[in-house]
Amino acid sequence: MSGANGAKKLLQQVLSVVVESGGYDAQLSKLCLVSAGQGRCVAKVKIEKEHTNRGGNLHGGFTATLVDAVSTLALMTTEQGAPGVSVNINVSYMKGAKTGEEILINAETLRVGKTMAFLDVDIINKETGDLVAKGSHTKFIG
Amino acid sequence: MSGANGAKKLLQQVLSVVVESGGYDAQLSKLCLVSAGQGRCVAKVKIEKEHTNRGGNLHGGFTATLVDAVSTLALMTTEQGAPGVSVNINVSYMKGAKTGEEILINAETLRVGKTMAFLDVDIINKETGDLVAKGSHTKFIG
Amino acid sequence: MSGANGAKKLLQQVLSVVVESGGYDAQLSKLCLVSAGQGRCVAKVKIEKEHTNRGGNLHGGFTATLVDAVSTLALMTTEQGAPGVSVNINVSYMKGAKTGEEILINAETLRVGKTMAFLDVDIINKETGDLVAKGSHTKFIG
Amino acid sequence: MSGANGAKKLLQQVLSVVVESGGYDAQLSKLCLVSAGQGRCVAKVKIEKEHTNRGGNLHGGFTATLVDAVSTLALMTTEQGAPGVSVNINVSYMKGAKTGEEILINAETLRVGKTMAFLDVDIINKETGDLVAKGSHTKFIG
Repeated sequence: MSGANGAKKLLQQVLSVVVESGGYDAQLSKLCLVSAGQGRCVAKVKIEKEHTNRGGNLHGGFTATLVDAVSTLALMTTEQGAPGVSVNINVSYMKGAKTGEEILINAETLRVGKTMAFLDVDIINKETGDLVAKGSHTKFIG
Repeated sequence: MSGANGAKKLLQQVLSVVVESGGYDAQLSKLCLVSAGQGRCVAKVKIEKEHTNRGGNLHGGFTATLVDAVSTLALMTTEQGAPGVSVNINVSYMKGAKTGEEILINAETLRVGKTMAFLDVDIINKETGDLVAKGSHTKFIG
Repeated sequence: MSGANGAKKLLQQVLSVVVESGGYDAQLSKLCLVSAGQGRCVAKVKIEKEHTNRGGNLHGGFTATLVDAVSTLALMTTEQGAPGVSVNINVSYMKGAKTGEEILINAETLRVGKTMAFLDVDIINKETGDLVAKGSHTKFIG
Repeated sequence: MSGANGAKKLLQQVLSVVVESGGYDAQLSKLCLVSAGQGRCVAKVKIEKEHTNRGGNLHGGFTATLVDAVSTLALMTTEQGAPGVSVNINVSYMKGAKTGEEILINAETLRVGKTMAFLDVDIINKETGDLVAKGSHTKFIG
């Protein structure tokens, strides 16, 4: 890719295609890309009722879906290019986030080897800066 | 609860309420309870396009959502009763599952202490018996 | 391997060699194999001071070392044969275990694919049957 | 604590006591503290044969023990003070590290709530800067 802007444009297209494909990625329809490139991807989403559990808090399943999706976008900005296949996802839930709050999803590629990629995701309350959740994602790319 | 049938009926009501609440649990609308009671809950779902990624495989985010939800239902059949709050979810993805295939989600309460509960989930291809994914879920119940 | 007894004998030799090699596996010197074969390995250890933290409880680092080692022995009883390389270890600590108590380490191969193996470990208090810890171990075997 | 130097001195004493207590923490006898304070702890160790597997690589069980120990030291520099009890440890193994190489163990407290603490650990090859492993550690502190 020819730079961070190119990477962001390309990921924006990838995201649009998967969101509109009629599969589970439709859950990502409110996700906005902030920046992308060099193994990183930052996205944001304003929490709406559709993202929450009955208590009005960010749903743990949606949190895991964000970890999965945004780290995969980050991986696609590396020379590796392809999305790979998930081997393991681990998520720690640190603090609730309520409807109306905005969260940043900050994904980073830690290492891309010949067969495995390791990715790390911070989910942060945009206003307070508090860490809401942290995820790690291991993918097979061989 | 007065027995396994009572537990299943109660969980069926809980599931209906959360699915219809307009939040992220709407993703569970196709989930069918098979059995419940004594810290266990078995559910099944026939994979449709809405549960898959672009490759037509069970989506990793939906898999994590199933781990979260069905283990929480299992926890609610213990004397503890309440759903608790997620602390950690870990999912290993072992084998793909395609649109049209049916999966069993088999959740078990491993331990309920005074403040923490530990739950385990197997996701199995109903026809072949192959393990599709395995999850562990730690909740705070204090 | 020609059967469960053959597998146990072979693993016993492997264990002796690694324990005596002067590396970190010396920590496993008190580990006794109970049974092995067909992707499974059961071992036991009587907790001594050298396995504990300052509170006299089974040390979390030793628990993780047991998850790593006994699941690798289990993997070696599959047709795959080789020990592979660790990609991820996840351990949940459910209940303490004290000096003088005996624990069983029960490892099972969940799936061996072309490149990845998935293993599961229960650590159980031998007298009470209580689950002390549960681990999952993902290895690269490509 | 009255500052970073005070924190480091105090942790040095804690480390000496646990290493000399005759328990499993004796494995940490070669660990050197680099800095400590405000929820962080950096330590280093030069890999010797006693820390490795038969292939001469940093042992996965020792890696997990380092994640456990150094993150606990980091937690003790927060206002929380006490070491807490492990609930979950997750370790990703990204790259080997050989006998004779020096590694940095960089632990950070991500969040301390009323009952749970979340810690993060990077293990880095000191010379190359490569990430060798990454761990997360969840503790109960209630």
